[in-house]
Amino acid sequence: MRDVAVIGVGMMKWGELWEKSLRDIYVEAALNAIDDAGVDRVDSLYIGCMSGGLFNGQEHLGSLMADYLGLGPLPAVRVESACASGGLAFRQGWMEVASGISDVVLVGGVEKMTDVGGDEATYALSTAADQTYEGYHGITFPGLYAMIARAYMDQYGATSEQLAAVAVKNHLNGSNNPYAQYPHKVTVEQVVNSVMVADPLHILDCSPITDGAAAVVLCPMSMVSDLTKGKRPTVKITGSGHSTDTIALHARDDLTWFGATERAAAAAFKMAGRKPSDIQVTEVHDCFTIAEIGVTEALGYFERGKGAAAAADGLTAIGGPKPVNPSGGLKSKGHPVGATGVAQIVELVKQLRGECDDRQIAGARLALAQNMGGSGGSTVVHILEGE
Amino acid sequence: MRDVAVIGVGMMKWGELWEKSLRDIYVEAALNAIDDAGVDRVDSLYIGCMSGGLFNGQEHLGSLMADYLGLGPLPAVRVESACASGGLAFRQGWMEVASGISDVVLVGGVEKMTDVGGDEATYALSTAADQTYEGYHGITFPGLYAMIARAYMDQYGATSEQLAAVAVKNHLNGSNNPYAQYPHKVTVEQVVNSVMVADPLHILDCSPITDGAAAVVLCPMSMVSDLTKGKRPTVKITGSGHSTDTIALHARDDLTWFGATERAAAAAFKMAGRKPSDIQVTEVHDCFTIAEIGVTEALGYFERGKGAAAAADGLTAIGGPKPVNPSGGLKSKGHPVGATGVAQIVELVKQLRGECDDRQIAGARLALAQNMGGSGGSTVVHILEGE
Repeated sequence: MRDVAVIGVGMMKWGELWEKSLRDIYVEAALNAIDDAGVDRVDSLYIGCMSGGLFNGQEHLGSLMADYLGLGPLPAVRVESACASGGLAFRQGWMEVASGISDVVLVGGVEKMTDVGGDEATYALSTAADQTYEGYHGITFPGLYAMIARAYMDQYGATSEQLAAVAVKNHLNGSNNPYAQYPHKVTVEQVVNSVMVADPLHILDCSPITDGAAAVVLCPMSMVSDLTKGKRPTVKITGSGHSTDTIALHARDDLTWFGATERAAAAAFKMAGRKPSDIQVTEVHDCFTIAEIGVTEALGYFERGKGAAAAADGLTAIGGPKPVNPSGGLKSKGHPVGATGVAQIVELVKQLRGECDDRQIAGARLALAQNMGGSGGSTVVHILEGE
Repeated sequence: MRDVAVIGVGMMKWGELWEKSLRDIYVEAALNAIDDAGVDRVDSLYIGCMSGGLFNGQEHLGSLMADYLGLGPLPAVRVESACASGGLAFRQGWMEVASGISDVVLVGGVEKMTDVGGDEATYALSTAADQTYEGYHGITFPGLYAMIARAYMDQYGATSEQLAAVAVKNHLNGSNNPYAQYPHKVTVEQVVNSVMVADPLHILDCSPITDGAAAVVLCPMSMVSDLTKGKRPTVKITGSGHSTDTIALHARDDLTWFGATERAAAAAFKMAGRKPSDIQVTEVHDCFTIAEIGVTEALGYFERGKGAAAAADGLTAIGGPKPVNPSGGLKSKGHPVGATGVAQIVELVKQLRGECDDRQIAGARLALAQNMGGSGGSTVVHILEGE
């Protein structure tokens, strides 16, 4: 297998983009990534998208996007793993380059969620859960994560204020991200006094509904200097891990433990020859504040039950010992589900290149991205290393 | 890259399976494939499905199916390329084994289309077309293929009776396939006198709405003897090709030409070191009778404009010089869209092993599968070789 580099990244301002279509936003991010890489060819495409069908009445996204990007004909693969679709598309693109099948691969993620009403968007998202045992009984994702949060608070004595600290940190980070949907700062008081969505989760514990896209360009390490002429520091993919858990929450031994994250991270760390303490900057899947807390434990950053206190104590802040979600995370940057996993890579590549201005983690050389589907039913973890 | 073998195949009787759920039918086919392979482990899953969201209110199929198959946790990837989702899942599975990332990979395809009404199913299928330029104007797939058929008849003087010959042949073949949804024979008179769906396509020119699944097990050639103990003849994947075309029909220079098929086939033939005349048994994407005709031309089996006469003259019949769709094709076997591309591989592996009884192509050693998305917006071609 060949070593693989990320040589270009592209994003766009996320939000409620009513004046742009699904294909528009994908093409905008993809062209930004191609421009950043400076390549004049793409051999193959991967597209992460959770539900073009339910959100936009549009499947067959490989064919569509290759066509509208003006790059077709070429192999174009759409990959889906609910909210981990983007991370999984990145893994599949890495695999295609690593295998030697293609050299220059464009990986994009996209979701346009505001073309439907709120009820329809909630329904579309609920199809990431177990339809028979969860969805049909009326529970949606805020409810599922509320059960995780309630169990966590019960087992470990965590408080709503500790959960809120995750939102406060991520909005502070996002206030320095020009792409963020909600770049405003919030306080613990604002979070715990915001509308209750599913007890104990307030609306400011929840990530938003977002339109957005992100894209990256991959190539073999051996081709980097030819393709980029040394224009930017090189970022190498050194670890990739992917695992599943039971899709339904009730089937797990411990509601508070993200087992797929633990396993995907173990695989990525093993491939990279690294350990949790080596990682200097991390993007995780904070679809709800409790998710970031549980995930930082499953990644091995904090002991079981200590993630909430770690967030409240500032350990995951920029400037803290283990910065998490400098981009603002899903919470502030927004969460167009299929794009999220690719946007995490965009942020980490910029961090490793030192291009993040006021949210830069000084001297970051080792980075980790964790992207999660459903209530943890699937997870993809990648480790990136800068020069 | 490693050479890859197909060591197990599994199907089930296709039809309107109202007593079984989406997960039930996937698991049934997958267990049949695992049983056929005789393996006691699976390292990774690929699942082809076009729209679990619109047909079943269920996305996140990787997590769901790994869970319900009882094989999780493990990496599980859902792949979508409209009606070519199954073929593309097979290509991705091949890539994972070829790359060395995983050894034993289960590739399944599934679609359960009868849980919704006919109008909803037609809408769900229409999301494989260009929503903005085709779907929003009210055209659905019978209309798109009717335009292809009308253009073909105009350019080449083909007749409805020649188109009907494809349906007659495929239903005859399907009458010997125990898995076929419609295993009854039809006559040219019955086809041309059946209800007109979209002029010039009658209902018996169209493939049906189907519930079904299919699965195969892959491993590196180097592990075949250890895993299977020589129980079955070995089938090797020697060529894989994938390409796109414009998603919208109006954007093509020639409505009658399936360019993605031509390009995917060229890539597969090049990889295999084979040419069209080498292939002894073929499964193609006959979603409509005109599709099989156009595809046999794009594969290089017949000259441009000669495919209709070739079908009518029996050249593609079992016993003819270029047998196509011995399984009965989509027309008779049924077309659960995400499963179709995997079911083509199931049929060809059985043909190469000599297990097809009354529909066996005698002595077949080289086989080709062609699986197409939308009106040809994406196509995957594979070449398989037996012992």
